[in-house]
Amino acid sequence: MVVYLVGAGPGDPELITLKAVKALEKADVVIYDRLANEEILKHAKGAKLIYVGKKAGEHYKSQDEINHILVEEAKNNSVVVRLKGGDPFVFGRGGEEVLTLLDEGLEVEMIPGVTSAIGVPTTIGLPVTHRGVATSFTVVTGHEDPTKKEKQVKWDYTADTVVVLMGIGQIKENTEELMKYRDPKTPVCVIENGTSPEEKIILGTLENIAQKEINPPALLVIGNVVDVFKQINQIK
Amino acid sequence: MVVYLVGAGPGDPELITLKAVKALEKADVVIYDRLANEEILKHAKGAKLIYVGKKAGEHYKSQDEINHILVEEAKNNSVVVRLKGGDPFVFGRGGEEVLTLLDEGLEVEMIPGVTSAIGVPTTIGLPVTHRGVATSFTVVTGHEDPTKKEKQVKWDYTADTVVVLMGIGQIKENTEELMKYRDPKTPVCVIENGTSPEEKIILGTLENIAQKEINPPALLVIGNVVDVFKQINQIK
Ligand SMILES: C[S@@+](CC[C@H](N)C(=O)[O-])C[C@H]1O[C@@H](n2cnc3c(N)ncnc32)[C@H](O)[C@@H]1O
Ligand SMILES: C[S@@+](CC[C@H](N)C(=O)[O-])C[C@H]1O[C@@H](n2cnc3c(N)ncnc32)[C@H](O)[C@@H]1O
Repeated sequence: MVVYLVGAGPGDPELITLKAVKALEKADVVIYDRLANEEILKHAKGAKLIYVGKKAGEHYKSQDEINHILVEEAKNNSVVVRLKGGDPFVFGRGGEEVLTLLDEGLEVEMIPGVTSAIGVPTTIGLPVTHRGVATSFTVVTGHEDPTKKEKQVKWDYTADTVVVLMGIGQIKENTEELMKYRDPKTPVCVIENGTSPEEKIILGTLENIAQKEINPPALLVIGNVVDVFKQINQIK
Repeated sequence: MVVYLVGAGPGDPELITLKAVKALEKADVVIYDRLANEEILKHAKGAKLIYVGKKAGEHYKSQDEINHILVEEAKNNSVVVRLKGGDPFVFGRGGEEVLTLLDEGLEVEMIPGVTSAIGVPTTIGLPVTHRGVATSFTVVTGHEDPTKKEKQVKWDYTADTVVVLMGIGQIKENTEELMKYRDPKTPVCVIENGTSPEEKIILGTLENIAQKEINPPALLVIGNVVDVFKQINQIK
């Protein structure tokens, strides 16, 4: 028995890898979070599908509940796929799930995916690195547990380009933090529902982006590479 | 006519996306860099294949030469695929190629790929983020043009986890820079030829990794997530 921890990519069902498709085809059970597009599940013909993401009006399954389901299914089936959006180790709590399964003596194999942090900007012609403009990028969570006493995110320690995931709920706080270290006029590009038919692109600057209407899932790309995006897309 | 700028993934030919495969299947011409595995080209049956990467003993094609080939082929064929390792916008000079093609009035579409910066660590069970350990990561080039007067890479502006690409030639300089800001005992994991049968993992710390034998292509992952990798792989 084996559990494949699989990245589903950023949304477009064609942005999944051949390796992920093969794992889905072999799966007896697929345990999945909210996916941008459930079409991906069609590769898992005949498999039992277990949804562990958010349900409208209901609470999230806790990580403990998810871990419990994973272990039970892994013990009772030969091939389990744990499917996560993007790459399973980019803010996906994949590491915790792997450690839980290994503690139970179960076998785990990782299959990376196209992370939304890079795949979403790339698709719209926004290069996270660009010669002469950005030789580094930082990917950071914009959603820290508000009950935590000591904040772990260090907004000053970020590279030329900053990509913020889960940053919409606290967009005001996050951009204020960044403005302590960067020009308020730094260009920002927000991409909602990237790589899907509902994709929406919102442009602004560090000082005004928080005033715009933005709906999750969305990510922020901050830095001068946004000007390269404008050049590529002939936006004045 | 259209040029698809396509990410080929980190090496394993199964870590290419369905979308990339479709573009290759439609291609009249494929213009490709050095690939970890040329098996990927089998999807482009009947297409003209043009190699523009490094040849043993010969010099690299200059970016100008590559741009020229791209424009010529795009003008004379209906579907051109420009195939790059990993994601085309992660240190791939993809942005420059796109701008050149657009200047000539040609159409370009981007297809992201699994970047080696994330896909290689994920595959070996090294999470670039992990709850309580790393809420951010920076991807940086370790190879700056040595003739440049002002260095653009700011080693102090890096997040919890640092992933260095193209960092083997200057590994001594890069780790010395990082040790100005980080504990010399910070764990480091080097992955050579990730996701391929030749994959090799080398463990060390900031202060001793430069003394080990490492052969490119390889990347460095620096930070406490390397301890999570050890835990996952039961390495003492
Ligand atoms: C819990 S994180 C998981 C990230 C995922 N593991 C990855 O690698 O993409 C979810 C966040 O990813 C971003 N995200 C995921 N899919 C997206 C999409 N299609 N468009 C924009 N942002 C997206 C949003 O910032 C969202 O809050
Ligand atoms: C010019 S950069 C291009 C990166 C590519 N665009 C990507 O997204 O992976 C090439 C560098 O990527 C890293 N790299 C690419 N493939 C790799 C692999 N299979 N294993 C380890 N490192 C790799 C190495 O650091 C190499 O020097």
